Amino acid sequence: MYTIGIDIGGMSIKFGLVDCDGQISTKTVFKTPKNTEAGINTIILGIDQLLKQANVPLSEINGIGIGCPGAVDSDKGIIDVLPNLGWESIEISKILNEKYNLPVKISNDANVATLAEAKFGSAKGYNTVIMFTLGTGVGGGIIIDGKLFEGGWSRGAELGHVTLYADGIECTCGRRGCIERYVSATALIERTKLAMQNDRKSAMWDYVLGDIEKVDGKTAFECAKSGDKSANSVVDGYIKDLGESMMNMFNIFRPEAFVLGGGISAQGKYLTDKLIDYCEKFEYGYHNSPRTKIITATLGNDAGIIGAAALIE
Amino acid sequence: MYTIGIDIGGMSIKFGLVDCDGQISTKTVFKTPKNTEAGINTIILGIDQLLKQANVPLSEINGIGIGCPGAVDSDKGIIDVLPNLGWESIEISKILNEKYNLPVKISNDANVATLAEAKFGSAKGYNTVIMFTLGTGVGGGIIIDGKLFEGGWSRGAELGHVTLYADGIECTCGRRGCIERYVSATALIERTKLAMQNDRKSAMWDYVLGDIEKVDGKTAFECAKSGDKSANSVVDGYIKDLGESMMNMFNIFRPEAFVLGGGISAQGKYLTDKLIDYCEKFEYGYHNSPRTKIITATLGNDAGIIGAAALIE
Repeated sequence: MYTIGIDIGGMSIKFGLVDCDGQISTKTVFKTPKNTEAGINTIILGIDQLLKQANVPLSEINGIGIGCPGAVDSDKGIIDVLPNLGWESIEISKILNEKYNLPVKISNDANVATLAEAKFGSAKGYNTVIMFTLGTGVGGGIIIDGKLFEGGWSRGAELGHVTLYADGIECTCGRRGCIERYVSATALIERTKLAMQNDRKSAMWDYVLGDIEKVDGKTAFECAKSGDKSANSVVDGYIKDLGESMMNMFNIFRPEAFVLGGGISAQGKYLTDKLIDYCEKFEYGYHNSPRTKIITATLGNDAGIIGAAALIE
Repeated sequence: MYTIGIDIGGMSIKFGLVDCDGQISTKTVFKTPKNTEAGINTIILGIDQLLKQANVPLSEINGIGIGCPGAVDSDKGIIDVLPNLGWESIEISKILNEKYNLPVKISNDANVATLAEAKFGSAKGYNTVIMFTLGTGVGGGIIIDGKLFEGGWSRGAELGHVTLYADGIECTCGRRGCIERYVSATALIERTKLAMQNDRKSAMWDYVLGDIEKVDGKTAFECAKSGDKSANSVVDGYIKDLGESMMNMFNIFRPEAFVLGGGISAQGKYLTDKLIDYCEKFEYGYHNSPRTKIITATLGNDAGIIGAAALIE
């Protein structure tokens, strides 16, 4: 049996046929249309194309899972609003169930990525797992007793919108000081640019060939590795804020594993070693209990398809 | 059938016989001894005394539940360390199970209070519930799908030790800026005293008969109700910090109900109305989903016994 996993993104919709070991055997990609009706049609087109391409009959499919970049009602199977796509109020489970007569499950993209890592990726074998995806924003995912926890009305697990510094930097969500404003790739880039403006001699200027618009999530990390002082202080500040954000989650969930995904997680062991050092200093409640493992995601861009398929049990 | 609920506190250990509706039919209280061995003996003495007093045979008891002020390993049934009592490493489940041949469950005091409110108190009927106990410190409890969630190795749900202002006021836990340092009764008293020192004409001085050492968790609230400006600004600051702390939990759990317990919760509707007002301004993620109900605890001092008993299913 196979499961169809669908990863709806801002640019493209990825479709994959996933087996029970989380392996993708066939994949197809469509451009993301920017309105609701075209969105529905593209999803159906993609499923049909995937099945044709794989030459697998519907009878060998046990369900369809979908990860969405925005608010969904996973109980009712409704895509509520995907703000960057202009999609709204799609009864996607009903529509696909009527067409294919298969169970359909949906969740948001960060939840789906977390489920993928917990079932088939770096957090496999752990029962309680928290994940931050460090990208344009900060997504969050929660696995409790091996199951995805989405919060009431599937509106929880918005871990990027927990405050780190109440009264801090204004956030797109309407509050101030959210984690997202300090540890997203966007925030790291802002921190890096600021440090460069304050240190015209920093090696970071050479790294971006003098063009500050070329700064990305790697700039500070790479220049810190070669000993640049300003780059190191950007990294230290970033590690502190990320470490504090993670320790807040430790005190709430005391997860067995904490997974970091998204672009920044490409720093791998360099990143996790620094975070482990930072968090080790904090002993609260660890008396006679093991520490949370801090690891990076391993499924990369496939996590969206694999995790969407993993919504079907 | 009855369950024995035991509430271990800093001053006294309360024992109660609890029926399946969460009603306490018999109660007895012992002074809390300050060492491990005397602690074990007092628990046994208390259980025997309770059964004798109630004139109920062991065959009518289905289990023993215990709430503890400190770190426990609820899986293994071990009281790990109760710092204020000097108790350490007690295999309480094993000891009581051998003596009474009954199932024994333990948890920490804030978890137990939350379970009591969710099963028999103000949050009855709600599946996902978060609680803050606003006392000397801030305790936290998490109910997911009607069940107590204690975190890995039963070391999670330390909601008072999530930071509100990273880099803020030093906390006893070793970090800075924890919720507890801003919204506990202790913190409210400190805020109140500071405001009084800055306003010698505040009505709060009359309320405490000129003696600043008489300030308690009610001072600012009561004087705010009669219109004192400085008292109102203490209350506003407190509501803001408590509201922000609660909204962080909303974004993580989106609970159906959020319960406030501990001394400060005696302010009832005056407190919850202000918090609802504060949190209403924040719209993130509420699109098409109901709001979290903000309520105060109703079981008072009995919550410890009732919740401990509720650990036995």
